[in-house]
Amino acid sequence: MSLLDYFRSKKPATASIAKERLQIIVAHERGRRDQPDYLPQLQQELIAVIRKYVQIDDDMVQVQLDKNDSCSVLELNVTLPED
Amino acid sequence: MSLLDYFRSKKPATASIAKERLQIIVAHERGRRDQPDYLPQLQQELIAVIRKYVQIDDDMVQVQLDKNDSCSVLELNVTLPED
Repeated sequence: MSLLDYFRSKKPATASIAKERLQIIVAHERGRRDQPDYLPQLQQELIAVIRKYVQIDDDMVQVQLDKNDSCSVLELNVTLPED
Repeated sequence: MSLLDYFRSKKPATASIAKERLQIIVAHERGRRDQPDYLPQLQQELIAVIRKYVQIDDDMVQVQLDKNDSCSVLELNVTLPED
């Protein structure tokens, strides 16, 4: 499955509410299957970097990690505070 | 334009060569238009985090920043070393 297929398979957002959101997607396409997958470790570091710019509560972060043979996709969805 | 439309508008990859690649997409949907855009600053920090896990040459990183009224999308495409 290509990365584009992955995005195409995502369902559309339920409604276009004017909310402040941050979405981070990290896709790692591995040439060989025996390479290490560091996306789970990366996740916390990415959130730490974002925290330098904007206040994030842990319960406002949704994390999803999809994997198949040659591709791992980490998706972070952050709802930001209104003010 | 929704984030999903953005991904749908991307062209498919030219060929499915078994290369190791990392793609990072950060999308910032702003509720109000007068909010600061910190994605350009975020870019270097994201690369620094990735560097902890894998060796990246500056010339192997392609950066694209798309903006419209309410959404900014930062896209980093990294070709990783073969070994």
